[in-house]
Amino acid sequence: MRLEGFRRLLRRRKLDAFLVTHPENRRYLSSYSAADHGIQESSGVLLIPLKGEPLLLTDSRFELQAKEEASGYRVELYARGLLPLLEKILQGMGAKKIGFESHYTLHSTANRMVEKLSVAGMELLPLHGLVEKMRLIKTEFEIEAHRASVLLNEKVFQRVLPRIVPGVTEVEVSLMIESTMRELGADKPCFETIVAFGVNGAKPHAVPGMESLAEGDVVLVDMGLALNGYCSDMSRTFVSGKAEELFLKRLRVVRKAQLAGQEAVCAGALCCDVDKAARKVIEEAGYGDYFAHALGHGVGLNVHEDPRLGSRSRKKLRSGMVITVEPGIYIPGWGGIRLENMLVVRDDGFELLNEDTTWLDA
Amino acid sequence: MRLEGFRRLLRRRKLDAFLVTHPENRRYLSSYSAADHGIQESSGVLLIPLKGEPLLLTDSRFELQAKEEASGYRVELYARGLLPLLEKILQGMGAKKIGFESHYTLHSTANRMVEKLSVAGMELLPLHGLVEKMRLIKTEFEIEAHRASVLLNEKVFQRVLPRIVPGVTEVEVSLMIESTMRELGADKPCFETIVAFGVNGAKPHAVPGMESLAEGDVVLVDMGLALNGYCSDMSRTFVSGKAEELFLKRLRVVRKAQLAGQEAVCAGALCCDVDKAARKVIEEAGYGDYFAHALGHGVGLNVHEDPRLGSRSRKKLRSGMVITVEPGIYIPGWGGIRLENMLVVRDDGFELLNEDTTWLDA
Repeated sequence: MRLEGFRRLLRRRKLDAFLVTHPENRRYLSSYSAADHGIQESSGVLLIPLKGEPLLLTDSRFELQAKEEASGYRVELYARGLLPLLEKILQGMGAKKIGFESHYTLHSTANRMVEKLSVAGMELLPLHGLVEKMRLIKTEFEIEAHRASVLLNEKVFQRVLPRIVPGVTEVEVSLMIESTMRELGADKPCFETIVAFGVNGAKPHAVPGMESLAEGDVVLVDMGLALNGYCSDMSRTFVSGKAEELFLKRLRVVRKAQLAGQEAVCAGALCCDVDKAARKVIEEAGYGDYFAHALGHGVGLNVHEDPRLGSRSRKKLRSGMVITVEPGIYIPGWGGIRLENMLVVRDDGFELLNEDTTWLDA
Repeated sequence: MRLEGFRRLLRRRKLDAFLVTHPENRRYLSSYSAADHGIQESSGVLLIPLKGEPLLLTDSRFELQAKEEASGYRVELYARGLLPLLEKILQGMGAKKIGFESHYTLHSTANRMVEKLSVAGMELLPLHGLVEKMRLIKTEFEIEAHRASVLLNEKVFQRVLPRIVPGVTEVEVSLMIESTMRELGADKPCFETIVAFGVNGAKPHAVPGMESLAEGDVVLVDMGLALNGYCSDMSRTFVSGKAEELFLKRLRVVRKAQLAGQEAVCAGALCCDVDKAARKVIEEAGYGDYFAHALGHGVGLNVHEDPRLGSRSRKKLRSGMVITVEPGIYIPGWGGIRLENMLVVRDDGFELLNEDTTWLDA
C-alpha cells in the first residue's frame, strides 16, 4: 500500500528509482526499525525501483534484523561501503534518473554519489520530503498507535508523580520517568526528558541537573516515549505543595492560551492562525515577550515533524494530522510554565489524545 | 588554546571564517554542550572568524545555556532561521571565503547557503574533518576524562552483574544498566545498550527484547556512557551458571585475538596491521567467516571516532589516540561472543583503560 503510493510519486517525477536514507522514512516504507547512531552511521538504505522488488542495502551487523523485519524487500549487504554496491545494482537495473533525500544526506556524501554515478551515465536528483509528505496524514491505524503511546506516557507520568517530592533532584525525576517508560513497555524515551525546578524552567529545553526540589517549587516536566515507533509528547507544570498566587495566575494564562489554540484546530485552518489564537491570549495578559517558540508541531515516527504551528506558517491543517499544542511563558530569574497536549486534526475540529488533566485547571 | 590551534588551520587554508555545525566539534571548541535532536534540529552553530571574537549562533531556547557555557563566545540569536543572521554577520565582517563542515551539513542546507551567500559575493567552501583532526589526539586531561568514564562504566557493570540471573529479560537488564549509569552520575548512555542472550548474540547490534535468561545461557553486554562528555565503550560475554565447553573454547579464541590486537598497538603501527594481528588468531581457529566487523575504533566526545581499525585502513596510530579493541565471533543459530576494551596509544605500546576482567580469562 505505502509502497504503491510512493511509486506513484516517483512516476510523476519521472524517476527510475529512489534512495531512502532517513531512518523513519525507511521504517515507514519497509518496517525495518534499526536506528542510526547519528547521520554519519547509517544502518541501511532503501533502494526503491519504479518496478520490481525493492531492496534494503545494509551491512552484516544488521543482516538478521533486516531480513526479519523488511518483508518484501531483498536484503543486500555491502562490505566496502554503500557506493560500489549501489552503482552495480543501479547499472543492473538500467536506472538513469535516481532521486535521493537531500534533506537527509550529507553534503559530502551526496557529492561523492553524484560524481561516481555521473561517470556511469546516471543522474542523481535531490528531492526533499517526499516520504514525509505521505507521513503527514496518519491512518486510523497510526492514530491508534499514537493514542496508545500518549496513554502509556501519561501512565508513566502518573506513576512517577507521587515520587516528585521535596528533596528529589531533577536528574532523579528524569531517571524515574525514563526507567518507568521502559518498565511499562515503551521502546524508549523519544527525546531527553526535561525536568526543571523553579528558575530552571525558564529554559524551554532545560537539561536536568542536581538541584533538589523545595516545598512550593514549580516543576516543569516535558516527556515523551516511542511505542511501536510512534511518539508521544506531553508537558505539565505543577507545584509540589501549595502554589503561589502568581504561579496560579500565570498557569491560568497558559491554560487559557492552550484551550484557545486547541479550539482553533480543524482541517483547513492555517497553522499561523492556530498559533495566533493561543498567542493572543498570552499577549493580552502581558506576557507576549515571554513566549518565544512556536505553538506546536506535528508528531509521528519522529517526535518533531511537519506541520510547524508557528506565527509565519501559511500551511493548512489537514484531517488526520497529529499535532501538539504547547503554549508557554518563560521568565528569566522566575521560571517557566508550559502545557502540552497532543491532538488529531479532524474535519470538524480536533480530537484530544490526552486524558491526563494534572494541574490543567488549577 | 584549542581556538588558536583551529585558527592556524583556517589561516593555512586562506579562510576568513568557519562554520562549525557538528555538535561534538561545537562542544570541543566552545564548551557549549547542547545536543542536537538529530541533524535536522540544530541547537546552534559556531562562527569562527580568523580574527576577533568567535560567535555562537542559536535560538532563544538555548540562550541561557549558551551564555553560561560558551565563555569567550558572543551569543547571537536567530528567530527566522540561521541563514539571514549569518549573512548579515558575515557581511559585517567582510568575510569572503567561509569554510563549512560538509560531513555534517545536509545537502539541501548547504545548497541554500551556497546560493544565498554567493549572491552576496561570498564563497562557501566544503571542508571535511578539520576539527576532528584536532580531536584525534587526546590531551592527558582528556585521557583522564576517558579513564573516569571507563571506570564508571565498569562500576555500573559490576553493580548490575549479580542481578543478571535466570528469569530476567534483555530489556530489564538494559534498563538496569542505563538507570544505574544515571544514578552513579553519568551524563547518559552514549549508545543504546546491547544485551543479548543466547542466539540473539549473533547480531552484533542486537536490540534487547523480551526473552528471559535461562540457566547456562550466554550473555553478551555492550555498554557505554558519557561522563563530562567523554565516552566509554565496553563489551563482555559470560554465562549465567555453568558454561558449556564449546562456549569456553570460543571465548578463549576471542580473548586470544583481543590480546594479540592489544599487543600490536603502539604509535606508528598501521591500523590494518592491528586488525590483522587479532583477525589472524580467529582465522587460524577456523572462525574467520564469523568476524565480519572491524577490530575497533577511536573514542572521544563521540563513541565512534577515527581511526577505524579495519582491514583496509592504512592510517597510522599516533600517541594519545584512545581506541577500542573488540574482536568477536558471531554464529547464526548459536550466538555471539565479543570482548571489548579501551586503551590509549602510547609511544612504546598501549595503556589499558579497563580494569574489569569478568570472564576475560575463563
